[in-house]
Amino acid sequence: MTRQSSVDQKQSTFNAKNFIAKERQQSRLDIDQLNVFLENGLEEAQLTRDLIEEIVNDPVLKTSTDHYDITKAQEREITARRIARLSLYMEHDVKTKQKDFKDDLVRSLQDKDSKLLTNRDLTTFDRRLSLVANIDPGLSTRIGVHLGLFGNCIKGNGTDEQIHYWLQEKGALLMKGIYGCFAMTELGHGSNVAQLQTIATYDPSSDTFRINTPDLLATKWWIGGAAHSATHTTVYARLIVNKKDYGVKTFVVPLREEKTFNLLPGVMIGDIGAKMGRDGIDNGWIQFKNVVIPRQFMLQRFTKVIPGSPPTVKTQPLLDQISGYSALLSGRVNMVMDSFRFGSKFAIIATRYAVGRQQFGPEGNETQLIDYPLHQYRVLPQLALCYLVAPTAHKLMGTYIQTLMELHQAGADKAKLISVSNKLKDLFIDSASLKATNTWLVAKLIDDLRQTCGGHGYSSYNGFGKGYNDWVVQCTWEGDNNILSLTSAKSIVKKFADISRGKKITVTTDSLQYLTPQFIAKSLSKSLAFKFDKPNDYTEIWAVMIIRLIHHVVDLISKGNKIDSLSKTLVQISKFHAIHSMLLTYQDKLNNDSEGMVKDVYTKQYLWKMYELFSLYFIDQHLGEFLLLKVVTSEQMSQELQPKLLQLLPEIRKECIALTDAFKLPDPMINAPIGYYDGDIYHNYFNEVTNNNKLEPDGAGKPPYYPLLTSMLGREDFQSRLGDSYNTDTLDSLIK
Amino acid sequence: MTRQSSVDQKQSTFNAKNFIAKERQQSRLDIDQLNVFLENGLEEAQLTRDLIEEIVNDPVLKTSTDHYDITKAQEREITARRIARLSLYMEHDVKTKQKDFKDDLVRSLQDKDSKLLTNRDLTTFDRRLSLVANIDPGLSTRIGVHLGLFGNCIKGNGTDEQIHYWLQEKGALLMKGIYGCFAMTELGHGSNVAQLQTIATYDPSSDTFRINTPDLLATKWWIGGAAHSATHTTVYARLIVNKKDYGVKTFVVPLREEKTFNLLPGVMIGDIGAKMGRDGIDNGWIQFKNVVIPRQFMLQRFTKVIPGSPPTVKTQPLLDQISGYSALLSGRVNMVMDSFRFGSKFAIIATRYAVGRQQFGPEGNETQLIDYPLHQYRVLPQLALCYLVAPTAHKLMGTYIQTLMELHQAGADKAKLISVSNKLKDLFIDSASLKATNTWLVAKLIDDLRQTCGGHGYSSYNGFGKGYNDWVVQCTWEGDNNILSLTSAKSIVKKFADISRGKKITVTTDSLQYLTPQFIAKSLSKSLAFKFDKPNDYTEIWAVMIIRLIHHVVDLISKGNKIDSLSKTLVQISKFHAIHSMLLTYQDKLNNDSEGMVKDVYTKQYLWKMYELFSLYFIDQHLGEFLLLKVVTSEQMSQELQPKLLQLLPEIRKECIALTDAFKLPDPMINAPIGYYDGDIYHNYFNEVTNNNKLEPDGAGKPPYYPLLTSMLGREDFQSRLGDSYNTDTLDSLIK
Repeated sequence: MTRQSSVDQKQSTFNAKNFIAKERQQSRLDIDQLNVFLENGLEEAQLTRDLIEEIVNDPVLKTSTDHYDITKAQEREITARRIARLSLYMEHDVKTKQKDFKDDLVRSLQDKDSKLLTNRDLTTFDRRLSLVANIDPGLSTRIGVHLGLFGNCIKGNGTDEQIHYWLQEKGALLMKGIYGCFAMTELGHGSNVAQLQTIATYDPSSDTFRINTPDLLATKWWIGGAAHSATHTTVYARLIVNKKDYGVKTFVVPLREEKTFNLLPGVMIGDIGAKMGRDGIDNGWIQFKNVVIPRQFMLQRFTKVIPGSPPTVKTQPLLDQISGYSALLSGRVNMVMDSFRFGSKFAIIATRYAVGRQQFGPEGNETQLIDYPLHQYRVLPQLALCYLVAPTAHKLMGTYIQTLMELHQAGADKAKLISVSNKLKDLFIDSASLKATNTWLVAKLIDDLRQTCGGHGYSSYNGFGKGYNDWVVQCTWEGDNNILSLTSAKSIVKKFADISRGKKITVTTDSLQYLTPQFIAKSLSKSLAFKFDKPNDYTEIWAVMIIRLIHHVVDLISKGNKIDSLSKTLVQISKFHAIHSMLLTYQDKLNNDSEGMVKDVYTKQYLWKMYELFSLYFIDQHLGEFLLLKVVTSEQMSQELQPKLLQLLPEIRKECIALTDAFKLPDPMINAPIGYYDGDIYHNYFNEVTNNNKLEPDGAGKPPYYPLLTSMLGREDFQSRLGDSYNTDTLDSLIK
Repeated sequence: MTRQSSVDQKQSTFNAKNFIAKERQQSRLDIDQLNVFLENGLEEAQLTRDLIEEIVNDPVLKTSTDHYDITKAQEREITARRIARLSLYMEHDVKTKQKDFKDDLVRSLQDKDSKLLTNRDLTTFDRRLSLVANIDPGLSTRIGVHLGLFGNCIKGNGTDEQIHYWLQEKGALLMKGIYGCFAMTELGHGSNVAQLQTIATYDPSSDTFRINTPDLLATKWWIGGAAHSATHTTVYARLIVNKKDYGVKTFVVPLREEKTFNLLPGVMIGDIGAKMGRDGIDNGWIQFKNVVIPRQFMLQRFTKVIPGSPPTVKTQPLLDQISGYSALLSGRVNMVMDSFRFGSKFAIIATRYAVGRQQFGPEGNETQLIDYPLHQYRVLPQLALCYLVAPTAHKLMGTYIQTLMELHQAGADKAKLISVSNKLKDLFIDSASLKATNTWLVAKLIDDLRQTCGGHGYSSYNGFGKGYNDWVVQCTWEGDNNILSLTSAKSIVKKFADISRGKKITVTTDSLQYLTPQFIAKSLSKSLAFKFDKPNDYTEIWAVMIIRLIHHVVDLISKGNKIDSLSKTLVQISKFHAIHSMLLTYQDKLNNDSEGMVKDVYTKQYLWKMYELFSLYFIDQHLGEFLLLKVVTSEQMSQELQPKLLQLLPEIRKECIALTDAFKLPDPMINAPIGYYDGDIYHNYFNEVTNNNKLEPDGAGKPPYYPLLTSMLGREDFQSRLGDSYNTDTLDSLIK
């Protein structure tokens, strides 16, 4: 209810609430089991719930709809305050993970002889950060730049001693002592890292490097944290020794004094200012003028500069390259998880609104939006997307943590290094394709679902606007989606070509297991037809589609076409690879539910329905390709698959509220009144709007600038304003 | 060049500029002729250029990149100042149009006996407003609410005397005396106008109406201008006479005192606050408590309340309904024009960036983005869209002005009224389908083109972020795109069904001329195949596609399917109708270039290429439907159409800079440094960023809130902070 107005607030206003309550009463789904499925296990689900509770109740972190009204300057300051707050949670989370609350864990980690913290030690805090991103994405990123980019750059490229020094002794990993940023991209080069132009020239006489920005295009650009918060940065710069260019390497460069925050000499920094979203992040540009750092500040795990006359450079090329990019890997993996969490938020809002909102139909008993078939088609497949991405997000995160650990444990063991390097390469394929595909899909999800909420979706207080703006940069950073898709697809095509040439290829991930001679032969057989009488068909049809697309590409290349001319198809291969791997992981998880997450038969049936909906919806969305390559026929599509899709929608509609409740996102995490749990859409929305927009001090509805308007409306006639000079009489009198 | 940095600014920085200069040197296109084609004639083109010059040089209206940094409060005030400024231009434009500068035109219009101003008298100012929308869409809308919605509501529903009184005597049409808003939508009802709940009860004893908001859902919502600027509103409310409900009618209701801006008694207004874009508009909500207006304030062109005992109500149902919606018609027609102008702006930015930006390829001579086939596929069809929408936008505007004039001239002549009512109905079909389709396409255009600009597209100063936010509401307001598409498609399907039943149907627009028995029979013939050997094929294939889709729908309905279950297909019919009518109008214009706009043969060839690209690109985008309904075969698509599409791209790429120059939008209208005319991308961009982000007063790169960060980084150990209470020794000492 609202106290901001005394008009009748009963009757139809409560329909929305009642509709949603009714859905809950009628539901037979076990939402606890669904939640455990979505969160990847009972303990994990509990941890997520605990962390959410802590976040939404923390006095500094809690975020309400007034967050949609703040200015950039306010947002930056709030973000800084929240970072400081989260630094305390971070200590707490590491201690919790290590089950060690006595003495001072942090102090002991700083000890020279202490072990290196692993990614596993950080998983609780990473989860916290990932959940915080749901209500304040800029905050998570601003910390992510420090921990994920600066930190991982050092972990990926530094020696053990360097890692220990910067991250533990100096305290970076615990958000103490120093705060880092990640100076990779430049004004003139983003995706093409190998062509970055900043230079680090070795000076043997002082055993130091000089960092320089040779020209305007080499200005470090878009550097999150540079404008306001970083004391240090990792710089991607060309290593120049004895006038020879050894390519792009990484260096730790101090930017500001740690205590006064004064910029160091030679460091030029500016604010990049306003951007499409995430205004809490202080992106900046940096130019270096003869900034001197000791040789030891170059990260030298795989490339070393050895003093002498002349000085020499020693490199392990394979690992140097792989590791060089590993800083971005973490971001990509996290964005797949973000896709699940951020997508769920908007799926909840739009679904609740669709159930509560009535439009057209019999007077006094208008039809609920969700009961229109078109509306179901617009909303429910987006909900299915959130379900399908969840298992893949968890799996990818697990693989990432495991592989990075293996990389670090491999030490100098050649065999182990080759094995882990194969895993890393496949992880690059999967994470690139999944990051690109899901960030695109969730951008579309937010936009499509906003439109399903009509005008109310356009109000800032319902979250879609800021949500969209905050989201879409994910399509560009940590690897532009098109470029990632191309890279991923090219690797897949290469493996396929190797198989065709009879080579044995290494595949370390399930998602690429369609790459066998047997499956390829089967996929290319003309007689192949899917009946959709078993669950696996919904997955396998995508693998067949991928094989046919690859075959098509390889065929065109063999006929002399350049691979660049086939880029559009390559992007599709990557998208389909992602869709296939999501279906595969989801299916495997449902089939091999060893932990018995979903015991209830009815609930499990619904999980299968989501699976079917996801597959059929995207076949429908990509119908052109499926028909073109004859994976399905027109008749099969119009007589079988499209009707099946249209049948699934009303079935899923029946449980749509329970299916969204299963995400267990509390209202403060949703932060959009038309999507709150109780479904009291109109009171909630009216309250938030009136609370955030107080009446004007000069009188209600009387803006401070009203004289601008009254003087316009009350202006005199043109003639009077111009002293009657345009008067016919006057004019006639001027020239007779 | 920039004085903000002294790093080397020659060399590669100027590549971008040189690339663009080279394109211009090599171009053989006649951009003046192209511009005349796009602007619909030589005089029109000149007028557009003059108005643009006036706008971008006007000291109040000129808009630079600092506009991307203003707060909502600032934007609202700036908008009010600009409205006052434009009110002067408005007087000027009407005088210019009437070629009467002597005496006081405005004063004479206020004279009781003066003629009513027509839409034609306002065309120059309308054009000005449409051009202003390119740099400040919120400004145009805030005026558009007054002139277009409030004004057209009175024009469409008022008697001649009412129109004269409110718009001329009171001065509304000249932005004098009063300022109006348009209280149609309510919290609970938007698209379903017939179910609006605000009530206007006739009180015979005082010969007045009482306006009331019966419940929370009936709160007028999203009312542009209500929060701050309107003195009056037109209210959509249920007419209640003698306890009988006559449905929704329109009433003029004063809201504020004209001189003091104090709200009148019984009028409750609140600010709706932040929204996804167009923050310059003061959207508000309104509740009425027994607000009394004289009977004469009800707009009574088609419905009259006649006092007496009992009082009676007289209605002309047909026209009442048509006219009731005509206020929204103007907005829809304008949005098609906006699609052309707003789309062009981003097409220019992305094309210039694509030519100037280099990425990957040989060192020192990296490949320009525009030379990648994928990039061409991402950018050039969007440019073609801008070309294709232009002729349709002009034509639709012409039809709208003409039809409304006929409506007003028809008076009480029955035959004329029936004729004009048929035209209005077809205009509803076309404008709905074109508004929905083009606002969707341009939303995608902005988003897709932003992504082609990589990280730099994400900077506010390059316009995409605000552009997108300002744009997307067009998909929702003045008729939600899905609902408009459904309405439009249902009308088309109904005409088709009438033909099938042998009925004669009236078609007043070229765009529906596919609805003849002959063409329907031809379209459904199985042997039909397009060779694309003549220009008309590129248009006709879409008409065939539409017929087949309609036939499919009608078939399913005859088999007992409900029309609602076919909504997805109906939306497609509307989209395809829009695409077809754009191709048709464009083709006609090129074929029947009576004014000889495009004399140069080479230039004309390029206009045909744009036409082909547009058609083929959208066939490719909707390939699923084309294959499903067998309008093309897989073989034709892969062997003929897709290769043709891929051939067109590099040809159009050759002239892409000239093709964008032809829009003749000067830099201040583009307001995005990576898209300025000289192509000096990096200097322009760097300058705008540094100009808009001055160094911090406490020291460069030292934000006002830095102590938040230094105290976090310098915080003591946990043990020290907690007075060593967690110490093992302490703990052991507590319980021995």
